[in-house]
Amino acid sequence: MGGMEEKFKAISAADFFYRNREIAGFDNPVRSTYTICRELLENSMDACEAGGYLPDIYMRLRYVEGGALEIKVEDNGKGVPRRYVKRAFGQVLFGSKYTLRQTRGIFGLGGKMAVLYGQITTNSPVHVTSSTGGMEKYSYKIMVDIERNEPLTKQEVVERNHGQWHGTVVKLKFQGDYARARPKIVDYLRHVAIIEPYAQLTFVDPDGVLYFFRRKAGYMPRPPLEVLPHPQGVDVETVRRLAERFGQGSLIDFLVENFHRVGRRIALKFLRKARLDPDMDVVELLRREDLIPKLVKAMNEFDDWLPPDPSCLSPIGKELLEIGIKKELKPEFVAVVQRKPSAYSGHPFIVEVAIAFGGGVPTSSQGEVNLYRYANKIPLLYDVHNDVSMKVIKKVKWWRYKINPESMPIAFFVHVCSTKIPYKTVGKEYIADRPEVEYEIEWGLKEAARRLKTYLARKRREESLKRRRAA
Amino acid sequence: MGGMEEKFKAISAADFFYRNREIAGFDNPVRSTYTICRELLENSMDACEAGGYLPDIYMRLRYVEGGALEIKVEDNGKGVPRRYVKRAFGQVLFGSKYTLRQTRGIFGLGGKMAVLYGQITTNSPVHVTSSTGGMEKYSYKIMVDIERNEPLTKQEVVERNHGQWHGTVVKLKFQGDYARARPKIVDYLRHVAIIEPYAQLTFVDPDGVLYFFRRKAGYMPRPPLEVLPHPQGVDVETVRRLAERFGQGSLIDFLVENFHRVGRRIALKFLRKARLDPDMDVVELLRREDLIPKLVKAMNEFDDWLPPDPSCLSPIGKELLEIGIKKELKPEFVAVVQRKPSAYSGHPFIVEVAIAFGGGVPTSSQGEVNLYRYANKIPLLYDVHNDVSMKVIKKVKWWRYKINPESMPIAFFVHVCSTKIPYKTVGKEYIADRPEVEYEIEWGLKEAARRLKTYLARKRREESLKRRRAA
Repeated sequence: MGGMEEKFKAISAADFFYRNREIAGFDNPVRSTYTICRELLENSMDACEAGGYLPDIYMRLRYVEGGALEIKVEDNGKGVPRRYVKRAFGQVLFGSKYTLRQTRGIFGLGGKMAVLYGQITTNSPVHVTSSTGGMEKYSYKIMVDIERNEPLTKQEVVERNHGQWHGTVVKLKFQGDYARARPKIVDYLRHVAIIEPYAQLTFVDPDGVLYFFRRKAGYMPRPPLEVLPHPQGVDVETVRRLAERFGQGSLIDFLVENFHRVGRRIALKFLRKARLDPDMDVVELLRREDLIPKLVKAMNEFDDWLPPDPSCLSPIGKELLEIGIKKELKPEFVAVVQRKPSAYSGHPFIVEVAIAFGGGVPTSSQGEVNLYRYANKIPLLYDVHNDVSMKVIKKVKWWRYKINPESMPIAFFVHVCSTKIPYKTVGKEYIADRPEVEYEIEWGLKEAARRLKTYLARKRREESLKRRRAA
Repeated sequence: MGGMEEKFKAISAADFFYRNREIAGFDNPVRSTYTICRELLENSMDACEAGGYLPDIYMRLRYVEGGALEIKVEDNGKGVPRRYVKRAFGQVLFGSKYTLRQTRGIFGLGGKMAVLYGQITTNSPVHVTSSTGGMEKYSYKIMVDIERNEPLTKQEVVERNHGQWHGTVVKLKFQGDYARARPKIVDYLRHVAIIEPYAQLTFVDPDGVLYFFRRKAGYMPRPPLEVLPHPQGVDVETVRRLAERFGQGSLIDFLVENFHRVGRRIALKFLRKARLDPDMDVVELLRREDLIPKLVKAMNEFDDWLPPDPSCLSPIGKELLEIGIKKELKPEFVAVVQRKPSAYSGHPFIVEVAIAFGGGVPTSSQGEVNLYRYANKIPLLYDVHNDVSMKVIKKVKWWRYKINPESMPIAFFVHVCSTKIPYKTVGKEYIADRPEVEYEIEWGLKEAARRLKTYLARKRREESLKRRRAA
């Protein structure tokens, strides 16, 4: 017995995601077409907002030889610094999104997956032109060496950057299926236009149809700031890394300098409760295997930390959300609610919800409800039935508010923003049901429903008054 | 405008999965406890079957200091060769499962994720002892350098291997929640005992409760063989890699030597249809950007390839599946159906189904159905409502077979084995609905239902006969 020996080998991160691309939303040509549009658009939105520029994004799809599609996405964002372009487009797990701050693309994968998918279906490189607004504008043709996870530069051109242009243009070919992906892509763009009324979006599809979403607001939400990790949410690995970087010094200084909203007073109170010596050297902490787990457990369980500061979050705000909803749906009535910041396991989050009624809002069909879901401004279009928002909508007793979401022209909007959205999959499709998040969504929707109830009651009174007067 | 410059950086594969561990089934202590048990058990099963040894696996969980859990899993498999132990347990994306062959752990991630999770919750190393049956038995304490994705050896001991022992013992500590994970773990073990009646499983839980699943069959299914890729399922990247390795030589030789079931006659027919020169040098193929996509497109669309050979698959077989079901459920009647091999996009698969009735089979409660799902012998316990099998069960008109799955004591079993299971997530929880797979499941279940219908009709006849005689 024994058989032949197993073949052991290492594969690169690019190779892993190439082999398992379905987990990043590339399971078939239809889905891949949608995912590519979405990922490139989201990168563009992030690049604009990170630079403080009102987004103006142009996306074009067209058919090219061999039945393939070519996508071009052009933005007016801050651009990619020249020394990073090759790796930003040609190396998986390289990016600017590995910080504690609310960004759309937490996985730093999507753009590269689009490049990779284009390459494995058409064998052609991605074309990138970018500038950060300086003297140079640079263009590259890049492929990915999948087995090594390294960029392969096929062409490099540097020109003078006239007029201080800043932004990025990405162009790539891929085998897709636009005809069947169209409904999702258009639905996606409309979702974006609602939540980002300060963005101008132009999409020209392969049949030459133009979709134009006009900018209706001249300002953006305050951009998110980067923050230190909150002590309630850290794990052993995070603390170990921070301790190694800290080196020699006292435990109390370590806590105060490395964690979110930890002052000397609270740190001292915590250490006393955890029975740890404030003057212990951090080098000592690293020497003994059991000390960091003990410290982390105590940090996670301590109740008196200050709650996380939501400055690392960038909610839309009531005003912008209302502008967006009115612009795209033209409802008779809309109630927007922004909940106070909350947190789950040390990750701060804010829930914003809205209910729109009447006017251009369609009555939902066949027992479905109109639900627009967003996480960190990303529209979520798939797997609605697994999402926490749908769970809440099914739970609430709407008749108490004299509302029937299945027979009245009503649309719900839920936006969750957080430094860590509890996604269930890399494909970013739905939010897992953390009780804290569920609670905020529920009470937000109930508050909005109360306002709608008041509106409807007044409307009924006025109508009956009118009728009586007319009689 | 412009803001501060973005921070760009690369992260290792270990770091990526550490940050996004929820996508591999590590989203909370309950789920993590279940996932760790499952991943280690599956690695053990694979190690036994790859060596041709009837599995005899011992798993023990116990509480240790600090409220943590310690898991120990011991198998009699083929062992890990000494030179691979460190990387096999301490480096993400290193393993023996990156081949075209049916294995449980296609992602080569699970075992390492268990080690990683143990480390980040308890700061302690994994203990591994292994031998391939030779002169040496070796033990290691290993941690993962997450930022570099490299193993850190904390201890290494080599001893004489008395009695030619072969197998692997893995022991690690982690923060979990056994009380709430128990139902899933026990359910999982029972699922395994059904599909692998040739395995002996012993589980001692932290409360000292013993779960013992006795071996009831003395033989195993034929192990799967490794095969070349089927031309219908290849992509540009695969063909490019193979072409680079092939180097100089004719296109026809390249096809015959590198693809599954491609003979000279079929290759010639294909090349003629694709208008490609059989004598073209493969080096030429690599030189021009558009040639490989053209070749691949033609390969994917050509209809006359031989269907994939299912020798790379290892179905359970009717006999073993029947033994397993009878052993664990003790039904009054069971019908097992193995469908003929089929394929989707060049990936061969076999569907095996069964329906059990009466005896120890419980009547399902509250409109649910008893459904045991498996993919490559892995039990699938989560997200049943998204699974293709549930979709089929909801679709079939059971009254035609005089069966009511919701009010009769009936259990369904569906096993799909394939070189590539179309999973939707890394967590391996449910199978996407490929039409080809759906078709085989549907007709398998209908065939089994027909047999149950015949059995029930005969039973009714006999009973009414008995009653008449008694009267």
